[in-house]
Amino acid sequence: MKICVLPGDGIGPEIMAEAVRVLQALDLKFELEEALLGGAAVDASGDPYPEATRKLARAADAVLLGAVGGPKWDSLPREQRPERGLLGIRKDLGLFANLRPAILYPELANASTLKPEIVAGLDILIVRELTGDIYFGQPRGIENRNGERYGFNTMHYTESEIRRIGRVAFEAARKRNKRLCSVDKMNVLETTQLWRDVMTELAPEYPDVELSHMLVDNAAMQLVRAPKQFDVMVTGNMFGDILSDEASMLTGSIGMLPSASLDANNKGLYEPSHGSAPDIAGKGVANPLATILSAAMMLRYTFNREDAASRIEDAVKKVLAQGYRTGDIFEPGATKVGTKQMGDAVLAAL
Amino acid sequence: MKICVLPGDGIGPEIMAEAVRVLQALDLKFELEEALLGGAAVDASGDPYPEATRKLARAADAVLLGAVGGPKWDSLPREQRPERGLLGIRKDLGLFANLRPAILYPELANASTLKPEIVAGLDILIVRELTGDIYFGQPRGIENRNGERYGFNTMHYTESEIRRIGRVAFEAARKRNKRLCSVDKMNVLETTQLWRDVMTELAPEYPDVELSHMLVDNAAMQLVRAPKQFDVMVTGNMFGDILSDEASMLTGSIGMLPSASLDANNKGLYEPSHGSAPDIAGKGVANPLATILSAAMMLRYTFNREDAASRIEDAVKKVLAQGYRTGDIFEPGATKVGTKQMGDAVLAAL
Ligand SMILES: CC(C)[C@H](C(=O)O)[C@@H](O)C(=O)O
Ligand SMILES: CC(C)[C@H](C(=O)O)[C@@H](O)C(=O)O
Repeated sequence: MKICVLPGDGIGPEIMAEAVRVLQALDLKFELEEALLGGAAVDASGDPYPEATRKLARAADAVLLGAVGGPKWDSLPREQRPERGLLGIRKDLGLFANLRPAILYPELANASTLKPEIVAGLDILIVRELTGDIYFGQPRGIENRNGERYGFNTMHYTESEIRRIGRVAFEAARKRNKRLCSVDKMNVLETTQLWRDVMTELAPEYPDVELSHMLVDNAAMQLVRAPKQFDVMVTGNMFGDILSDEASMLTGSIGMLPSASLDANNKGLYEPSHGSAPDIAGKGVANPLATILSAAMMLRYTFNREDAASRIEDAVKKVLAQGYRTGDIFEPGATKVGTKQMGDAVLAAL
Repeated sequence: MKICVLPGDGIGPEIMAEAVRVLQALDLKFELEEALLGGAAVDASGDPYPEATRKLARAADAVLLGAVGGPKWDSLPREQRPERGLLGIRKDLGLFANLRPAILYPELANASTLKPEIVAGLDILIVRELTGDIYFGQPRGIENRNGERYGFNTMHYTESEIRRIGRVAFEAARKRNKRLCSVDKMNVLETTQLWRDVMTELAPEYPDVELSHMLVDNAAMQLVRAPKQFDVMVTGNMFGDILSDEASMLTGSIGMLPSASLDANNKGLYEPSHGSAPDIAGKGVANPLATILSAAMMLRYTFNREDAASRIEDAVKKVLAQGYRTGDIFEPGATKVGTKQMGDAVLAAL
């Protein structure tokens, strides 16, 4: 079990240290190798996804990532910005299937800005296509046309790209509550008309899953109005970026949410859904649980170790039940802890 | 004051009847002419934006629209679907500036799915560009490539398109709390990098307005996390479609929200933010207030009759204070009324 560890930027190194401690506490034989991605890599080599990282990531079975980015690198030219590293590794490793659970832990119900009856028990899985769409479409650029600047990008999908992510979503729904909602903008965009057509064509192969379709604007509303109507949602890269962040925030505790980005053979990159939080970096107060839960996802999806994955998840539930909280999820009456103490608590609970 | 009245589909005719009654009760000289748009037009002529409607709409100073669309027309070929009529009239009349207020009326605070402290007093104005972006971009289509279907669309903006909507947004912010948040995805899309550049270039012309920028995924989160941080938001057609619907739903009372779509000379199309609600069409229970408030926006923006606009808005506030509620905003203790009774109540309050 070869794991490429990419601490990244901001709070990345701190939260990653705890996830690594948790992995090492399991009685499993991991080979962990660390490399640079994002701003840290730019600082060291000028390249947000350097050759050395590429080599390690390709050779590994899985990649565990902290977070990338920060204001420090925001004014760099496009090709040197930290997020290029993230887009680069996704594309390079063919990680087309992004799985983002939005789960509300009962202990953290108050953290949500939504009323308890609307979000209690929330458990949505968003399946986002991650290597296609307008993110990677050509042609693109900013040019001079008719004496003024003109910016353009290309949204596109082939039917095989859609089918491949569709299968992942149907399979995921099959293992859950068997309801899949595909999100598109078919009334305006031909690309997503094809998306809807291909999803519809796949449905007969999954008679046990109930497929529905929703327009993206309506989906953005329904997530606010009645989020528990959803089980699994599947959508393209751009809409998935927006809706998965909206869905995460419904829980109010994005510091708890892991994510997985998988290729066709369940090789994956695992990372917390939150960002690099430069404002609290280096202070030892960041919440490491999303990264620890990302490690659990890795054990489940890439290494097929459901047992070890559940052990970690149970330990996290236990520390929540014990009342340990980092600042982001703190409420009066709880025990406020820092990053390392939270890691200690998970280790103790294991 | 020539007004082209387009009742549209579903509940459109019912809610429009009340808005027309309210307009007629004002002591102003309107010329009202009715025409067909959307499904109703398809049924009559096969064209969702027929020539007769085009003529009337072009000749009018303002257009008042009910709502278009419904499942009845969903399986028609693309060019005959009701929403084509809407896109057609927007483009034909050059209605590039869509103004969508998301306001929480204190009397309806409970309707929101968000906690009262998060949304009380919410008052956001979303300025959405409406005639450009991936909505109208060429090339587009579904083709056969390498033996499989391939769908594609083009996102694009010119700097003059961005500048023109930017000015509308800065001006709007100037009349409000002087804070403008421009939303883009500059870390991935060149089109929106240009968007951010042009907005930034405009800022010095509006030194009294504080400009900020936010990535669209973060904006979708922040609307859930802390919506009151926003005053005016400005964004492109596609992101605006998603974010304005999300923002509307934060209030929980989308049946109350009007919208305006303006051209360069304040000619405008005014319509409620909600849809055609085919499930309750013809039952006389739909909420006409968003359409009535759209008529008020028309008086303000196109006809410069702030006095008359405020009179309508005050009347609406009064009927809310009096406890009249249609089904969509009903709560125990209120007086439940139908569409026509709600119109009566507004007329009485005028
Ligand atoms: C950093 C950015 C390029 C990235 C994306 O848009 O995919 C991020 O928002 C995400 O969702 O992982
Ligand atoms: C009906 C549809 C084409 C339209 C849009 O996407 O613009 C609608 O959602 C809106 O926001 O007015």
